[in-house]
Amino acid sequence: MSINTKKSIGQQMHSLMEELFPITRSITGEGVRNTLKRLKEIHPNLEIKEIPSGSRCFDWIVPKEWKIEEAFIEEVETSKRIVDFKNNNLHVVNYSVGVDKIVDFEELKKHLHYREDLPDAIPYVTSYYKPYWGFCLSYNQFKELNPKSRYRVYIKAEHFDGVLNYGELIIPGASEKEIFFSTYICHPSLANDNLSGPVLATFLAKFVKNLPKRRYTYRFIFIPETIGSICYLSKNLETLKRNVVAGFVLTCLGDEGDFSYLPSRQGNTLADRVALNLLNHEVGKFKRYSYLDRGSDERQYCWPGVDLPVCLVMKSKFGEYKEYHTSLDNLEFVTPKGLEESYNFYTKLIEVLENNRTYKVTTLGEPQLGRRNLYHSISHLGRSGFTKLLVDFLVYCDGERDLVEIADILGVSAYRLLEVVKVAKKYQLIEEVS
Amino acid sequence: MSINTKKSIGQQMHSLMEELFPITRSITGEGVRNTLKRLKEIHPNLEIKEIPSGSRCFDWIVPKEWKIEEAFIEEVETSKRIVDFKNNNLHVVNYSVGVDKIVDFEELKKHLHYREDLPDAIPYVTSYYKPYWGFCLSYNQFKELNPKSRYRVYIKAEHFDGVLNYGELIIPGASEKEIFFSTYICHPSLANDNLSGPVLATFLAKFVKNLPKRRYTYRFIFIPETIGSICYLSKNLETLKRNVVAGFVLTCLGDEGDFSYLPSRQGNTLADRVALNLLNHEVGKFKRYSYLDRGSDERQYCWPGVDLPVCLVMKSKFGEYKEYHTSLDNLEFVTPKGLEESYNFYTKLIEVLENNRTYKVTTLGEPQLGRRNLYHSISHLGRSGFTKLLVDFLVYCDGERDLVEIADILGVSAYRLLEVVKVAKKYQLIEEVS
Amino acid sequence: MSINTKKSIGQQMHSLMEELFPITRSITGEGVRNTLKRLKEIHPNLEIKEIPSGSRCFDWIVPKEWKIEEAFIEEVETSKRIVDFKNNNLHVVNYSVGVDKIVDFEELKKHLHYREDLPDAIPYVTSYYKPYWGFCLSYNQFKELNPKSRYRVYIKAEHFDGVLNYGELIIPGASEKEIFFSTYICHPSLANDNLSGPVLATFLAKFVKNLPKRRYTYRFIFIPETIGSICYLSKNLETLKRNVVAGFVLTCLGDEGDFSYLPSRQGNTLADRVALNLLNHEVGKFKRYSYLDRGSDERQYCWPGVDLPVCLVMKSKFGEYKEYHTSLDNLEFVTPKGLEESYNFYTKLIEVLENNRTYKVTTLGEPQLGRRNLYHSISHLGRSGFTKLLVDFLVYCDGERDLVEIADILGVSAYRLLEVVKVAKKYQLIEEVS
Repeated sequence: MSINTKKSIGQQMHSLMEELFPITRSITGEGVRNTLKRLKEIHPNLEIKEIPSGSRCFDWIVPKEWKIEEAFIEEVETSKRIVDFKNNNLHVVNYSVGVDKIVDFEELKKHLHYREDLPDAIPYVTSYYKPYWGFCLSYNQFKELNPKSRYRVYIKAEHFDGVLNYGELIIPGASEKEIFFSTYICHPSLANDNLSGPVLATFLAKFVKNLPKRRYTYRFIFIPETIGSICYLSKNLETLKRNVVAGFVLTCLGDEGDFSYLPSRQGNTLADRVALNLLNHEVGKFKRYSYLDRGSDERQYCWPGVDLPVCLVMKSKFGEYKEYHTSLDNLEFVTPKGLEESYNFYTKLIEVLENNRTYKVTTLGEPQLGRRNLYHSISHLGRSGFTKLLVDFLVYCDGERDLVEIADILGVSAYRLLEVVKVAKKYQLIEEVS
Repeated sequence: MSINTKKSIGQQMHSLMEELFPITRSITGEGVRNTLKRLKEIHPNLEIKEIPSGSRCFDWIVPKEWKIEEAFIEEVETSKRIVDFKNNNLHVVNYSVGVDKIVDFEELKKHLHYREDLPDAIPYVTSYYKPYWGFCLSYNQFKELNPKSRYRVYIKAEHFDGVLNYGELIIPGASEKEIFFSTYICHPSLANDNLSGPVLATFLAKFVKNLPKRRYTYRFIFIPETIGSICYLSKNLETLKRNVVAGFVLTCLGDEGDFSYLPSRQGNTLADRVALNLLNHEVGKFKRYSYLDRGSDERQYCWPGVDLPVCLVMKSKFGEYKEYHTSLDNLEFVTPKGLEESYNFYTKLIEVLENNRTYKVTTLGEPQLGRRNLYHSISHLGRSGFTKLLVDFLVYCDGERDLVEIADILGVSAYRLLEVVKVAKKYQLIEEVS
Repeated sequence: MSINTKKSIGQQMHSLMEELFPITRSITGEGVRNTLKRLKEIHPNLEIKEIPSGSRCFDWIVPKEWKIEEAFIEEVETSKRIVDFKNNNLHVVNYSVGVDKIVDFEELKKHLHYREDLPDAIPYVTSYYKPYWGFCLSYNQFKELNPKSRYRVYIKAEHFDGVLNYGELIIPGASEKEIFFSTYICHPSLANDNLSGPVLATFLAKFVKNLPKRRYTYRFIFIPETIGSICYLSKNLETLKRNVVAGFVLTCLGDEGDFSYLPSRQGNTLADRVALNLLNHEVGKFKRYSYLDRGSDERQYCWPGVDLPVCLVMKSKFGEYKEYHTSLDNLEFVTPKGLEESYNFYTKLIEVLENNRTYKVTTLGEPQLGRRNLYHSISHLGRSGFTKLLVDFLVYCDGERDLVEIADILGVSAYRLLEVVKVAKKYQLIEEVS
């Protein structure tokens, strides 16, 4: 299926998400590969890479590949299927080992996960680093279990030496310096956390490819969370440290809640500064978190010695909305409108990054705007609106502050200031400082 | 007329303003010259300089000289003079081209300026950089015009190659380092903005001349706003950058409103620090503006690459009081009391600047004040008032902080601290750090 | 008497204070010597030093020794003793000259000190640097005086060339770098200000001696206030400047009021940072003062050119509680509970100082805690409590921030973080940066 370009960007993103939603993803395995293959149809230059199980990446060992085919709980007496993986891939604890036995209710309970506070929701649970089997179900389903029954638990799953896969999409620009976007593809049927991330990344990559000219190289990576960023860093650390000027982890970008900001560890990188300027002046209302609230791959990107300039701009932050990590984080919770708001934010951010430079005025003293018809010549009509903004911009073009810093001083959006830069350049009132 | 020294300083300043008020000033021409000539009577070493029309100064071209002799609007049918320049020189748009024709009301309206919100006020309007003719009148006058009448508009004015004039008064001190005061002389019959500036400058220059000894050289300049500071900078930039340690634009200094502070672009120069200390501790209540609220010659002095340490301490700030740029900004709005408050502020500021130095204590550990009779020897009467202030001052004399910085730490006026410095010097408790 | 170790630490401290309380101390003389001798019984390596009267120390002259044997006021007519030094050594102005004469009420009044606002309290008054005689009494006593009576005033006291004494207790550690505690021993029968200081110092020295290993050398000094710190500095300045990494003036540490903090002059020394972290996170509620509120030997230790990293953590600050410098600052105002709170604070502070180091993580990217059983393997149980704190700590171990700075960023007690450090070290997740 090709993407219908008559739909709005938000609708197009939501359609792609609908396709990806049913796939059973995990940190390794067929689900990840199928997801990456679908994205490669849109971006043929997306490279699908692999690292063998057992490889050492920094402090970590790449885990075995996981394959699951079937999973259910059946009441022995009635042969009734209580939960079935076919209905919802969240029903099995992700990365579970295989099992096939009959257990009583007490034994079964040790392997069941539910949420009393959200009785309709199936929680999302994983057990990546310890062999374990388990099921997830809604509290309503759990309450209907008969404590006196015996249950057959069946999971047809295996772990074997395979590979860990990830996708890498590089879009070259005039400079080797890079803008970096990282998103993860390891969650099964969950929409905001995390499908909104790879979907937005896919559409931002299209936007970047369509830019009339690109100053920066753009790197989009699609990885399993944590182990994927560890692996990717272990193979690319030097390049990333040399080239990345700003980076963002893309996740939780499709709901209709307010925007959220989670800073890099350093807190004042270019990524942070651009994000905050646009959040303050293009978005307005947003929630500001601390790096102590981190939880995704920024944990690795900002680790001491890695120190990439990576922060997050999300809609509702992971862990902070009630649908998080349950079956309620679905295709209704994420909407075309929510996705499009994120798309609009990040495309503005890209435009600001492309044009963020340090300028110096070309005149000593104010330029004579009257001579250039940039100033209303009758005194009390003169210095308002655009002209005021132009001169305010110029007066801070001292060869030391970049565009974003000046926008912050002026209390305006750096995106809005781009039109001012154009005029200032056209009339040769500023020159770039290298 | 010599200035009557039996009057209070405020009254003397107001008297000088009364003399200067009627003169028709503009950015060039006879009005500026006559104003400067009057000031030269008081300060014979004031030099009146000129720059020919058409000269290039940085990005600007020096405009032609403007001469106006007569201007009126007359209702043709009745021969009634509606407005006449003889009654108030604000009635003609400043720098208007000449005109003599009969127009209908519709045409006339395009050339009339009034203020509905201030029905008695004649606004002050200029058109320096585009040929235009126009009249200013009160809204009450405007309402009485008959829309069916025809009107003769007559302005006898010409623009010709002449000169731009300004005044420069230099009072040498022990050092080449300078305190710089800039004020403008281009507004016609307007009192607070701007005659209060040149009048205060004139009296501060007298104060400076009378100082028993002068550490700094003082430079007072009297220029047309904007084009004047551009021209002056283009001729003196190197000298000013090398020598000026603190500078101030003098304007809006005669009304009885609260003080206002507008920082330099850098915001933390010596000029700013002294001004803020005295505003905080000698004045108390004042309004603090941002450099984004700038509007006078600080626009040029703080331009990137110029970067002089220049800020403003005003009474009611230009643009922020209703009388601003209208005939209501007159000799009643400006009072002897208002002028004298400004005089007192700036003379204290000069005394602080003259005595602002960096000191180092001469003892390790507190000095034994008891031996010097600087300390009440009975314990509970000891460390209060002056002694407390003296020791607090000493403990910050670490050879790094100047007087103003120490005053800020102590939360006291730097002016008040001058008496402490005297005692500390007398008892050799401190020594100056060069 | 040996200290009964079955009592609580607070009770032990209070018992020692009871012994020391009656001694008539002053800046010089027998009282100081007897106090030091008692402390030397507890710490035999306490050295009692002396400096001859008349010695020059920095800007100061060491005063003569003071000896007092008897002092009273007697109503001549009735032979009634109004006040008697035997009842309370506060009755005589400390360091008074001798006197024996009969005076009328008017003359007497010039030499009487009382507090109308505290009618039961005998104030504490000194006259160290000017010859004077005087008596202190309660306002209730004063009111009973008969204005028509004559009074015999008798003080048997003398000043003579002797010595100024102080005590110095050095407990060596692995490093020459020192933790410095200064306390004063010049006040007579006053408990919070100042006996709580030397008593706490004595017990902290015991604590330090019992540490299983000592990184730092510890220096405790027991001096007369002001003149003592001046003298001590004049003899030890170079050593102290080279070695002291953190220092504290111990005083006002025995009442049950809230803690108080008075910063060093610089305000951000290691001493300040540790004190503030523990006050914020181990104490919670405390009152923060400015260095302008200083009053004890921090005046000398922070003097420009001395610049030792010395601050104060007190209970109720000197001058800020009503009992201050009166007979109400007694053995009831100071309690075992109050003393023990201070002891607990400072022992934690010492443990933090001993263990405050700068660490660097040993892994690039997060360590795989699962492999080390430091992380619950099932996802939603994983990152909470101790594990969260451990990883938060690690992520700031960048080789630049010390333990206290990281604790401040995390918003936790540095003392609590010590257990995290132990685990991180055990699993070789961090290494020390020298």
